[in-house]
Amino acid sequence: MTTPRIDALQYANWSEDIFRQMRAGDVDAVHVTITYHETFRETVLNIEAWNRWFERFPDLIFQGFTADDVALARQTGRTAIFFGSQNPSCMEDDIGLVEVLHRLGLRFMQLTYNNQSLLATGCYEAEDTGLTRMGREVVAEMNRVGLVVDMSHSGDRSTLEAIEHSTRPIAITHANPASWHPARRNKSDRVLQALSESGGMLGFSLYPHHLRGGGDCTLTEFCEMVARTAERMGVDRLGIGSDLCQDQPDSVVEWMRSGRWTKTVDFGEGSADAPGFPPMPDWFRDNRDFDNIAQGLRATGMCHAEVAGIMGGNWARFFAESFGSVAPRYKEAAQ
Amino acid sequence: MTTPRIDALQYANWSEDIFRQMRAGDVDAVHVTITYHETFRETVLNIEAWNRWFERFPDLIFQGFTADDVALARQTGRTAIFFGSQNPSCMEDDIGLVEVLHRLGLRFMQLTYNNQSLLATGCYEAEDTGLTRMGREVVAEMNRVGLVVDMSHSGDRSTLEAIEHSTRPIAITHANPASWHPARRNKSDRVLQALSESGGMLGFSLYPHHLRGGGDCTLTEFCEMVARTAERMGVDRLGIGSDLCQDQPDSVVEWMRSGRWTKTVDFGEGSADAPGFPPMPDWFRDNRDFDNIAQGLRATGMCHAEVAGIMGGNWARFFAESFGSVAPRYKEAAQ
Repeated sequence: MTTPRIDALQYANWSEDIFRQMRAGDVDAVHVTITYHETFRETVLNIEAWNRWFERFPDLIFQGFTADDVALARQTGRTAIFFGSQNPSCMEDDIGLVEVLHRLGLRFMQLTYNNQSLLATGCYEAEDTGLTRMGREVVAEMNRVGLVVDMSHSGDRSTLEAIEHSTRPIAITHANPASWHPARRNKSDRVLQALSESGGMLGFSLYPHHLRGGGDCTLTEFCEMVARTAERMGVDRLGIGSDLCQDQPDSVVEWMRSGRWTKTVDFGEGSADAPGFPPMPDWFRDNRDFDNIAQGLRATGMCHAEVAGIMGGNWARFFAESFGSVAPRYKEAAQ
Repeated sequence: MTTPRIDALQYANWSEDIFRQMRAGDVDAVHVTITYHETFRETVLNIEAWNRWFERFPDLIFQGFTADDVALARQTGRTAIFFGSQNPSCMEDDIGLVEVLHRLGLRFMQLTYNNQSLLATGCYEAEDTGLTRMGREVVAEMNRVGLVVDMSHSGDRSTLEAIEHSTRPIAITHANPASWHPARRNKSDRVLQALSESGGMLGFSLYPHHLRGGGDCTLTEFCEMVARTAERMGVDRLGIGSDLCQDQPDSVVEWMRSGRWTKTVDFGEGSADAPGFPPMPDWFRDNRDFDNIAQGLRATGMCHAEVAGIMGGNWARFFAESFGSVAPRYKEAAQ
């Protein structure tokens, strides 16, 4: 069995075409965003929509719950879909929903999406006050049930405090080093170092606003950045989180950015001149292009095992360490 | 491994004392009601409350999902708690919630609770129009995911149509034959015959309003009734569904009967003179008294295997046949 291929973030306008592209690209597992600003009930509606996809295309996709499902996907020629939320709105103000959402398959949850949340501070706020009282409680509960803390859209202080407070390694599923491209969403060296030292994972983003030169960034430039990051963070701490938003209308990027929190337009990483989804680099258009990245990484001088780790092996290990209950109940201990 | 002991319906005012009584009574599995009139979100709050019980008392109870959990409970000296709803209010008007609730562990759902629902007609309505359009769709979806149709509080025609329309055996988890005691909630011979012929299960109720003579019904009278029913339905179709409502205040019986559907008081099976919970028979006060029933059944002349089946073996077989997906997905088929 070869190493699995995993993408740790996509939010596409799902369709049979896209699921077939996942298979064409040999993608064994994808962490998909099911919530940006949705309440619990709205998140459940999104899960219901996914259940209909699973029922319609059982030969292409199925819901992933454990790391074993990645191996099962590879073995059966399908793609395991793991749910995640980019915002804790899905758990509202109710810590009991952490376990309920985990039972429904949620495996990643961001503590913030750009703005201040009930739990922590987003990366677009002027001031970052770190984890809130509730944030500390929720991180502990996420640790207990096996829901990964994802700080992709959080501020530096909040991220450092989440790394410190969490008893399990956390993830930044989709971002790049700010030292390479100083976007608001990319991460400081201090954050990346703390992430790496704590056993956490960074997923490299292909979203053009996170790339030096945007959509014009070359495959070589991207892969050289990955290689330099591997030297600093350790090659085992790295994976891909493409942030692929394929086939989405611009109304979706408006929903991501403005949700229901403002009556005006927030351009987020875009601008009044370029408010929509930016065009992807020509070497990564969709799920069929992961081979380009693997080849680009090999061209930097990485060995086969290192490339295989970044293309999915490291996420597979992280999934295995992260998705189970950390305080086994009697039931599990007895088995 | 001896035959498990199962109670197919309780709605107690849960406490450590009651969980310890389950253990003292060697009760391996209990189907507990988590919803009477609650919406989806309110049902999830009830699940959250159960999650806290599971976290607090892992040596006494755990949540059951499959029939294997009954064996695990017996093996580890604990009680497996299976969730059920006495009302489809928990799925609101959304068929997608059937699969979501099943994922959260719901294993039984009544199509009605006394009144007309979106799905069928309750046993207190003047006219029973059978399964509704949505009712037929929901029964098919329940069949698909492995959520048992429970018609304990439904009218005769609705029950017969559910038996006919369902592709899997259904249950009447808690009721007695109306020919023995003609309570509105007890079941006609025609319903019991159709239930038996379709492979369904009847759980005998110990709720005094369902007993001839109420709380004064003797153990012998009850067990003779069981033996006579076994002759007509077949001994394999029978179990216990005690309807134990231990330690509940009378406000709870008011909630069960009146929910939010009336501003006046509905006395249900009670009356203005006796509006509260009736006293239980002295031979079945709580979970510690199941041995009395087993002994009473043996005294009717039943053999050991027949008694063991009624005390839990039949429910265990029904659980094994009923809780899994009937249309295995690729994933399950591949394993």
